[in-house]
This record gives sequence, structure tokens and C-alpha cells, in this order.
Amino acid sequence: MKLIRYGSFEQEKTGVIINGVQYDTSDFGEDYNEKFFATDGLKRLAEFVEKNKGSLKEIPAGSRLGAPLARPSKIVCIGLNYADHAKETGAALPPEPVIFMKSTTALCGPYDEVVIPKNSVKTDWEVELAVVIGKKASYVEEKDAMDYVAGYCLHNDISEREFQLERNGTWDKGKGCDTFAPMGPFLATKDEVKDVNNLRLWLTLNGKSMQDGNTSNFIFNVAVVIAYVSKFMTLLPGDIISTGTPAGVGLGMNPNVYVKPGDVMELGIDGLGVSRQVAKAWTR
Amino acid sequence: MKLIRYGSFEQEKTGVIINGVQYDTSDFGEDYNEKFFATDGLKRLAEFVEKNKGSLKEIPAGSRLGAPLARPSKIVCIGLNYADHAKETGAALPPEPVIFMKSTTALCGPYDEVVIPKNSVKTDWEVELAVVIGKKASYVEEKDAMDYVAGYCLHNDISEREFQLERNGTWDKGKGCDTFAPMGPFLATKDEVKDVNNLRLWLTLNGKSMQDGNTSNFIFNVAVVIAYVSKFMTLLPGDIISTGTPAGVGLGMNPNVYVKPGDVMELGIDGLGVSRQVAKAWTR
Repeated sequence: MKLIRYGSFEQEKTGVIINGVQYDTSDFGEDYNEKFFATDGLKRLAEFVEKNKGSLKEIPAGSRLGAPLARPSKIVCIGLNYADHAKETGAALPPEPVIFMKSTTALCGPYDEVVIPKNSVKTDWEVELAVVIGKKASYVEEKDAMDYVAGYCLHNDISEREFQLERNGTWDKGKGCDTFAPMGPFLATKDEVKDVNNLRLWLTLNGKSMQDGNTSNFIFNVAVVIAYVSKFMTLLPGDIISTGTPAGVGLGMNPNVYVKPGDVMELGIDGLGVSRQVAKAWTR
Repeated sequence: MKLIRYGSFEQEKTGVIINGVQYDTSDFGEDYNEKFFATDGLKRLAEFVEKNKGSLKEIPAGSRLGAPLARPSKIVCIGLNYADHAKETGAALPPEPVIFMKSTTALCGPYDEVVIPKNSVKTDWEVELAVVIGKKASYVEEKDAMDYVAGYCLHNDISEREFQLERNGTWDKGKGCDTFAPMGPFLATKDEVKDVNNLRLWLTLNGKSMQDGNTSNFIFNVAVVIAYVSKFMTLLPGDIISTGTPAGVGLGMNPNVYVKPGDVMELGIDGLGVSRQVAKAWTR
């Protein structure tokens, strides 16, 4: 199943994609949020869709897509999880996963404009596989970890490198600005993805290829990462773990390349669709 | 006004303290959450209390107190915000505020047991002043910052130093374990606190004084911190900024002192009450 949310920011309605067509599921009566995932919502939604498939309304053409799930309790990110990316940033290969957090207020839709923060000069891109947690996870064993997955999304983990690395704090400072987490176009349930640790992911800037990697190059795969994070904090249904980015970010270029107003980022992951964001300057 | 929440974990009901007596405000019909703060809830609650003060029921003696506000969208913490604490940890004085984030699943009540995580050997305490945000804050000016405050709470920013500093990640890894954010006993509205940048705060371990500081020694005061954080992420109503801890943490002792099962932490801040947590070992 492919879940979407559409309509204006923070007032999104729910939907699903069936055979490439977007249908409204507002009548299901629940947002795709913590309670939904915690109460077998995916199964109940599937039953609702099956029962009503003849009468579901198509979503009006041109509707804005929002993030495909409601604002979660947290977005946990894994840093330096591809060897080529660690190398390009000058970092050593991590002996265990690097964790940082992204303010959930950064969440936005897959085609929303990305706002370059006020005084930012180093806004960068990072195509990532985001894992959506399906049930409460605390001290999960690696062998059981995939049972805790609801599904997957495409995520652009936008990062301000000066804020992240040169402003005297943890990386969190450069990760949580508004619009820094374009998510989607859709949430694909776990069954839709054959091998999550073998998906091509790519990103272009103004049509030029910048990132082209594969999740088979993860240093720590999805199960390892879920089990690992769950030892440090409890993951709630609907929470997001973003699993890191392959080589090809602006910080890794020589000279560095950063996002300017009008720049277009397009990105995709096998089976998880394509998103596209145009950058714009901050205004009040 | 002093706000409290009571009852079993994650099922808390709301209340207020008037002249030292705890009253139930369930009939007000709202939790102290993002929507409450965003919609002038404090003013509406004060009106409700004024109107119903003759008929409010006392909270049953012995009721558990929960965190005095609902789980917020985020808990942002300021690191090294007292010069004496920076010195004891061997860190340089920060030229601008250090930011890290605490998983909101860490939130618990002021008298709840603190769970020493599995395999933890360096669980530590940090008495802190927590600021509760009253309205959406983005790129706030320092001169206006106090307008964005709803109130204040006492917070023990429990920290696992090995996870935080030796496990290859940002500080977030050692800050977000379950029960690592005992909050309360109450949320004091802004008007209850005369000068937030001049409050004594202290912590004892098994009755022995460990921390005894004053917010007048902040490197970055409350207004500075709110304005600063709001440049990196949007603060939502009900969000928490925890403003850092003075000297006297276990990491700063020679030799280090860390929390063992059965240890008792008591802490307080002028005007914000006293909390007390007994540590226990993790069990499934």
C-alpha cells in the first residue's frame, strides 16, 4: 500500500495511491499518526480501501502533497552510514552508528519549496531512505527489528553545514530548520519493498547528477540501525529513522557547492518515488 | 498559576495548585499540550479556575504526579551554559550556545523512578531550569523573546555520559533514554517567577549536596537562548528549552560519581518546587 497526504500545510487530508491513481481516504477518519500506527491502522486502512475501492474519490489534480505521515514524536538520523560519504566529508568510518536528531518542525511535502535559512551560506542536500516505525520499540534485537517497521519514504535530509559543523553545538543545529525534511511522495508499506538494503538512491541538482548510491552500501543496515537506536531511546509508532546519505553532497565537492535560490533538487529511491524541491531565500 | 498533571503514566489528568492544595481541572476538558498553549489556554484555564474555584475537587492524596505538561514536539537543551560546569567537564566556554535534543519519550513525572539504562555505567544528574514555550517562535529577537514564554519547570536532565561522549555520535545518544527527563512538580506560569535569571538551583545525591548554583551565572540567559534556538528551528507552543546545568555533576567529580540503583536524587529551583527520583536498574 502507498499512503499519501494532501492539501494545505498542516491541514493535510489522507489518501492512497492505487495503480498510480491518487485516491482520498478522508472517510477513513484518521490521520496517519502515532495512534494510527499503534492501533494496526495499516491493516484497518487496507480493509477500508478494499471495502470502498469502488467509491473512493480521486484527489483533485494539482493538489499539493504533504509529508505522507503526520508529524512524528521524533526524527532520528544516522550520520555517515555510507563509506563513500564518510570519506568525502573527511570523517573516519564510524565504529558504531552516529545518531543525531532533526526537529520535527522541519517536515514538509515532497514538492514544497525548501527555504534557505536567514544568513545561511551552506545549505546542502542528502537523499536518504527514511524508515517509519510501526510499533513501540525499546531494546529491540536485530533479528526482530524488521517487525517494527511500518514502511519507508524518500527523504531529503537538508543540512546547513555551517550551522551543523561550525557553530559550536551538535549537528542538530544544522538539521532542523523549517522545510529541511521534505518527505515522500508516499509512504510505501514494508511489503512493497523487496529488499530495503538493496535500493538505488540518487539526487540531481539542476538536472546534474550529484548523488547516485545504493543502500547495499550501508555500513549499518536497516535492522542494525533500528536495534541500535532502540537501545538509546524508545521509538514510537510513526517515528522516523533516516538512514544516512551516500556520497555526492555539496560539502564533499571541491570546491563546495551549496544551494542557491532557484536551484532545483530532484531525488529518488527505487520503489519510493521521486521528489523535487526548488530552493528559495528566507523571508519573514 | 501552577499547573500539574496527575494519574498514571501517559493517562494523566490535569490540575492546578492553589495555596498549596492540588485541585483537579479535568472538567476544563483539555490536556496541557501544544493546542492548549497555542490557543490562549493559560488565560482560559485561569478563567475556568476563577469561575469554578468553589467547586474544584481536591486531587486524592498519594496520587502520582506526571510531567506538568503533555509530551511536546521537542525538548531542546542548552549545553555548557554555566561557566563552572563547562570548566568541570574540561570544555572551553562556548562562544555561542550549544544545542542538543532530548527524545520526548524521556519525559516522566517529578517523583518517578529513574531507570538506569541496560549496560549503563555512567548515569548522571543535571538540575536545570526548563522554559516552556507559549507561542510559535521563529527568528525571534532577543528583546521580544520573553513574550514567547508560557512558564517554567524544574527538570533533571539525566545523562548517560558514556552514551553521550564515548559512543561515537552527538550528545543526543546519552540524553533520551526513558525516564531521563523528570519534569515538575509543576509548571509555574511566567508571572509567578520574578527574575528567571536569578534563581538558586540545587541537587543532592543521597542527601549530600552535589549542585548548588544560580541562574544568574548563565552564560546565555533565557531571552538570549530562546532567540538563538529560534534561528535554527521553529519552537512550537508547549516545546521545552532546558537551559543547562551548573557545576556539580558526577562527570565533574574526581573520581567520577555515577548513579547506582537505590540512589536518591533530590533537586529544586527557587519558586519551582522540589522533585525527588530514586534510581533503579533496567528490567524488561
